[in-house]
Amino acid sequence: MLKFKVLSQEKKSRRGVLSTAHGEIQTPCFMPVGTVATVKAMTTDAVRATGAEIILGNTYHLMLRPGAERVARFGGLHKFMNWAGPILTDSGGFQVMSLAGLRKITEEGVTFQSHLSGEKFMLSPERSMEIQYLLDSDITMAFDECVKYPADKKVVQKSMERSMRWAKRSKEAFVDRNGYGLFGIVQGGMYQDLREQSVQALREIGFDGYAIGGLAVGEGQEMMFSVLDYTACALPDDKPRYLMGVGRPSDIVGSVYRGVDMFDCVMPSRSGRTAQAFTSEGVLNLRNACHQDSLEPLDKECTCPACQKYTRGYLHHLFRAGEILGSMLLTWHNIHFYQNLMRQIRSAIEAGTFEQFHHNFMNRYQHDRKM
Amino acid sequence: MLKFKVLSQEKKSRRGVLSTAHGEIQTPCFMPVGTVATVKAMTTDAVRATGAEIILGNTYHLMLRPGAERVARFGGLHKFMNWAGPILTDSGGFQVMSLAGLRKITEEGVTFQSHLSGEKFMLSPERSMEIQYLLDSDITMAFDECVKYPADKKVVQKSMERSMRWAKRSKEAFVDRNGYGLFGIVQGGMYQDLREQSVQALREIGFDGYAIGGLAVGEGQEMMFSVLDYTACALPDDKPRYLMGVGRPSDIVGSVYRGVDMFDCVMPSRSGRTAQAFTSEGVLNLRNACHQDSLEPLDKECTCPACQKYTRGYLHHLFRAGEILGSMLLTWHNIHFYQNLMRQIRSAIEAGTFEQFHHNFMNRYQHDRKM
Repeated sequence: MLKFKVLSQEKKSRRGVLSTAHGEIQTPCFMPVGTVATVKAMTTDAVRATGAEIILGNTYHLMLRPGAERVARFGGLHKFMNWAGPILTDSGGFQVMSLAGLRKITEEGVTFQSHLSGEKFMLSPERSMEIQYLLDSDITMAFDECVKYPADKKVVQKSMERSMRWAKRSKEAFVDRNGYGLFGIVQGGMYQDLREQSVQALREIGFDGYAIGGLAVGEGQEMMFSVLDYTACALPDDKPRYLMGVGRPSDIVGSVYRGVDMFDCVMPSRSGRTAQAFTSEGVLNLRNACHQDSLEPLDKECTCPACQKYTRGYLHHLFRAGEILGSMLLTWHNIHFYQNLMRQIRSAIEAGTFEQFHHNFMNRYQHDRKM
Repeated sequence: MLKFKVLSQEKKSRRGVLSTAHGEIQTPCFMPVGTVATVKAMTTDAVRATGAEIILGNTYHLMLRPGAERVARFGGLHKFMNWAGPILTDSGGFQVMSLAGLRKITEEGVTFQSHLSGEKFMLSPERSMEIQYLLDSDITMAFDECVKYPADKKVVQKSMERSMRWAKRSKEAFVDRNGYGLFGIVQGGMYQDLREQSVQALREIGFDGYAIGGLAVGEGQEMMFSVLDYTACALPDDKPRYLMGVGRPSDIVGSVYRGVDMFDCVMPSRSGRTAQAFTSEGVLNLRNACHQDSLEPLDKECTCPACQKYTRGYLHHLFRAGEILGSMLLTWHNIHFYQNLMRQIRSAIEAGTFEQFHHNFMNRYQHDRKM
């Protein structure tokens, strides 16, 4: 059971607080991705210093290595990776589906081969709940199926209906405890009637929060927003809404505008390791020779260590030389940039100025799709 | 001109303080290696937190990329890499010599091809002094030649004599400033008479400090110590003595015992990236499966973040998963371990108990050559 409170609202946008066993989360929030028990290239102290209050772990990766039972022997994922705050874990469904030739889906669940060892594994709603219990996740995600985009309506419908049956089994298998919660996941592709049926099915089961899955799979921002337009506000007002795997800054601003509260994405961390920096002036590639002699900070408006203590020229040098410190500093900056964006979003909703913030942000960044 | 003061002495071992333009260094000291303007996998704040007061930069690597003139435009190496403390740079001689087929040595200096671009470069005593001036090094090393081990006495003698002529040219080209200094380098291989001639030649030129080069090149600890036995105490008492590229903890303890004040080595940082940890119980390889389920800290006696916040099992997981955080934490630990060793050495000399410390340490670690 999780406690969620909407503190203020501006049209569809909500400013809230979600309370978990490991602490509170101010929403709208962005969750850095810590795939295998580490946000890549960052200490947990650094992650915390960016303002992040919750991180995400991946069930699929963790069940393969080091293994959920092993993490449990270490006292759970928080202790294992030295992160005292809340953790959300996905259900493993999304990753398993993308294994293509290596997996077999039945009504019972999915059997698949590890991409690491070739060893056979099984995931089902029940096993996914068990793994997330062993990991001690504050927020457990229901086990679902996610179809490719584009897909025939028939295929999407069958998959969504199975996901709803799996959602019910997830709810039944989930061990409810104070401060711990289970989120259902809306599926239905880009079909309004299917999305509505999915929402209805999940509301009947009843969850601590509702995620919107099957988006950011190549459909484009415009279509994603149109799905959100009819999906987000159909969800219960008193529960958090989480848009999975999203996204670029403009995706986030536009989704908060449509009533979403929570986000996760590998983009800031992955970009950081490939020399891409999110800045108040757009996206920079630090490998470009134009930065070679630059004495400028990465982002004049940013207060992170990479911007306060180093030049673009130095960061360029680190990436040219293949130095780990380049990945460390740029990941730190990007996560900080995302957390700062969330702070601005929360302040704007509190002040009742998010409509204007959204308008300005979209005008500034939308057209070039750079952000 | 550098100020060096021996605060206390126990037999040949000295406890001193070296004052530079960028701050004081308590000796005996260990200098972490920051090859291309970064101690690999560490922020400079983390390096400082280990207790390190001075780091080393490599002239050869920095002249190729990003280039000494470029570093100068950034205000010198300290500003470029955000390290406020003292920096020692090597002369480039050692690295250039190891380029084998790619370099040509004349009395003037060395021409060589960049291992990065194939571009032609030249190093001479004068150019090496200029580069180190551009880098703004607190401690500049004289340009020298370092022969392979083993080598014929004739070869070693000719090389040492050239190094002494180059040392003189280095002294003439060095721009003396308050807080900045030039160190000469003793050569002469494993030959006592050549070492003595080299010491004599350097003393006649006069330097701010004296390095012992051409050791730790495969001769073994016993022979290294025997060279130190007649070389270290032949150097001026009132100047710091620096043993280049050394070494393992037992090498350092044994060399301080023989009168050495300063050390540098890639071992703690390189080992950290390959899962080797120096601990109070010896060297551990964190990749070994025996650590998989270990809830123990890396080193019970250590106060670094890797030991305070994580288990051996977690560190093992990071290396198995190829995660950058593994390199970050283990490098931090190893540098911390080395700095802690230096703190213990300094305290022991101050207390007049270093003879006993040396005896215990060698007994504990020497026989298995693990440290």
